[in-house]
Amino acid sequence: MSLIKFEYADALKFVTENEIRDLAAEVKKAGVMLERGTGEGNDFLGWYKLPKKRRKAEIAKVLSAAKEIRRTSEVLVVIGIGGSYLGARAAIEALTDPFYNIRALTGKKRANTAVFFAGNSISPEYLLALEEIVGKRDFSVNVISKSGTTTEPAVTFRFFKELLEKKYGKEGAAKRIYATTDRARGALKTMADREGYKTFVIPDDVGGRFSVLTPVGLLPMAVAGIDINAVLEGASEAYDEFANNELAGNACNLYAAARTALYRKGKEVEILVNYEPCLHFVSEWWKQLYGESEGKDGKGIFPASCDFTTDLHSMGQYIQDGKRILFETVLNVEKPRRDVVIGTDAENLDGLNYLAGKGMDYVNKQAAAGTAMAHVDGGVPNLKITMETLDAKNFGALVYFFERACGVSGYMLGVNPFNQPGVEAYKKNMFRLLGKPGY
Amino acid sequence: MSLIKFEYADALKFVTENEIRDLAAEVKKAGVMLERGTGEGNDFLGWYKLPKKRRKAEIAKVLSAAKEIRRTSEVLVVIGIGGSYLGARAAIEALTDPFYNIRALTGKKRANTAVFFAGNSISPEYLLALEEIVGKRDFSVNVISKSGTTTEPAVTFRFFKELLEKKYGKEGAAKRIYATTDRARGALKTMADREGYKTFVIPDDVGGRFSVLTPVGLLPMAVAGIDINAVLEGASEAYDEFANNELAGNACNLYAAARTALYRKGKEVEILVNYEPCLHFVSEWWKQLYGESEGKDGKGIFPASCDFTTDLHSMGQYIQDGKRILFETVLNVEKPRRDVVIGTDAENLDGLNYLAGKGMDYVNKQAAAGTAMAHVDGGVPNLKITMETLDAKNFGALVYFFERACGVSGYMLGVNPFNQPGVEAYKKNMFRLLGKPGY
Repeated sequence: MSLIKFEYADALKFVTENEIRDLAAEVKKAGVMLERGTGEGNDFLGWYKLPKKRRKAEIAKVLSAAKEIRRTSEVLVVIGIGGSYLGARAAIEALTDPFYNIRALTGKKRANTAVFFAGNSISPEYLLALEEIVGKRDFSVNVISKSGTTTEPAVTFRFFKELLEKKYGKEGAAKRIYATTDRARGALKTMADREGYKTFVIPDDVGGRFSVLTPVGLLPMAVAGIDINAVLEGASEAYDEFANNELAGNACNLYAAARTALYRKGKEVEILVNYEPCLHFVSEWWKQLYGESEGKDGKGIFPASCDFTTDLHSMGQYIQDGKRILFETVLNVEKPRRDVVIGTDAENLDGLNYLAGKGMDYVNKQAAAGTAMAHVDGGVPNLKITMETLDAKNFGALVYFFERACGVSGYMLGVNPFNQPGVEAYKKNMFRLLGKPGY
Repeated sequence: MSLIKFEYADALKFVTENEIRDLAAEVKKAGVMLERGTGEGNDFLGWYKLPKKRRKAEIAKVLSAAKEIRRTSEVLVVIGIGGSYLGARAAIEALTDPFYNIRALTGKKRANTAVFFAGNSISPEYLLALEEIVGKRDFSVNVISKSGTTTEPAVTFRFFKELLEKKYGKEGAAKRIYATTDRARGALKTMADREGYKTFVIPDDVGGRFSVLTPVGLLPMAVAGIDINAVLEGASEAYDEFANNELAGNACNLYAAARTALYRKGKEVEILVNYEPCLHFVSEWWKQLYGESEGKDGKGIFPASCDFTTDLHSMGQYIQDGKRILFETVLNVEKPRRDVVIGTDAENLDGLNYLAGKGMDYVNKQAAAGTAMAHVDGGVPNLKITMETLDAKNFGALVYFFERACGVSGYMLGVNPFNQPGVEAYKKNMFRLLGKPGY
């Protein structure tokens, strides 16, 4: 049985079945480029077969570090930006809940370790607010950076390293710092070797936005109590199912084809929609994956996201009636992990008794169905990705589904989906303004 | 001195000074429609002069309720969707910090009251996760709904009302429920009168997305310890400064004109950008304000948002090099409330010593300057809105600045900026699917 399903019936008013099927040859060509490594960016295809690699020693090391962190620390500060934080944050919020940290900090001491993300901005206010929470508690740091010199995480690491050293001494601090970095080179690797930090490897051939299934994502996930073996198993099953170059019957290739067909018809904005607030950061992760892979050479779908029904009361009007440059991709979770039965009220002043005895999830699903109909009527094509439930295995499958579809889509668009030259532009200007040596 | 400044020099490669000045007559016409109430939607212009109304009794009542809630409750659950939650959430995060609730719940008991938002989705998982936090603590509820029958808040209110009644008995619960609703009509007003809840009024002529300066926004803000008189004073000063129909010298009208000029040149997506994570929900509030006001009749700028430098490592590539359908509006805060001086490191392995002794805010500002240059070079016009610092008064001014510019922009676009007919479409389908009587 498929872990991830894909439907595009609600896009067929805007693009025909034949127009999608006609993309089979392009899909195949793109797929072969991924498989054989014959396309641009082929030095960053490590993610492609990653789920099939046996990495028992690495997983054991991650699990052992996570156990140690949970034993010694009320808080783990994860320092990283972009692909070095979005995947882990997406996983933790999706697989626990948006209040995980509050429960960890207010529950039985060290029953759970809170996980805070830092080093993903240059805001002093954020850093000081976080220090207030972290400073008085036992904490560890997982610093994630290929080079160790990216400004945001580097500045933040200096800050927390000093805090750790003040609190635990230099040796004590070193035991609480976990560096996820290059195998051999770079400032962070050098520092880690010199000071004796435990290290985890970011593979050379896996770019940041494709790194969630490496220790980059796995260590923070494991600290939050997520079953990382199940995540990897889900990704592995998704590989088995989707890593082929057929269009018919391949949900992953069909998603790539459908969104490409819609883009070519002038639908330039894709909104990833969910109906579960805990999926908010899955959308943020997805926005980096697709935006950074496709947004180049003056091309690409602009990736946006909405949390419904929440944002039906903010973005809903625009989606229904605004400029017709949009399509939606709904991330549907078939079965909720928990449900609430709506109660009866004798007076029924709110008029809700017609829902009494029904589960909220049932109401949520009817909202989703009603919204899809309304938006299609309003001129917004709807695609739908369904996962059976929100657990570690399905999350892993979803990650691989989106990664592979992104590679296929990017090659179909005619860009190198695995570089990000545009990210350097602001850095160069910033370094020059800051007077960095060499700029 | 202006509370809010506006610059458009970084848009002048894409639209000329004359093209903006030529809009003076349109701006004036739109402004007169707002002032005299001669345009469509003129029954919802209550927000326009709201900051100048003396509302001493109402403010006193809000402050007294807030004091009572802070005395009796560790948590306030605010139940509302769209305009009934975004403004308060934006204010609380901007004026405290993203960890306000964690500090409230882990600090000295009742030194601060945590404020959680609910009733803004139909997710049972979210509700149950929130119940785990709220249920074991003393709490109160502020339910915000004009009608009292909107599905999301109504279902959620049933849930928390039952929880309160179980915990405190029917009478005790009634003392802990604060209803912000219609002056005279509707299910919530009827229920409040019958059960004896304290009530606050949503004025008839103020739509949800313009309601943050009414008790809708003010009560939750006051509970979080925000100086609501300062917020209102800021809005009042912004009214004095911007509620005129000149273009030259009026930051508010210039923002409306510049974004209109860019839209007419094919820039169909506006990204509101900040460099302070605590402004994230100001952008969410802004997205409702602009998206719901302008996105109709097949027209309107698609409102998106980014938190920088965070999202430079996710959306940055697209913005730099993707489809040229974008412009950015940067929300700049001149002086941070607190700063962190970057330390020296003897070994300097991260190469950051060139920044030693500098404030992080200085680095953040250079990142902003470097980014603006890079994005303009890449073909993305940049607008810039500056507030001196992030305090209650400036927040109030910013709210009024954006509200007024939105009214002017909407009329310039030729739509009714004060209705939201498209929001009903999904509801009708949903009610039909749910078998609601009458559908």
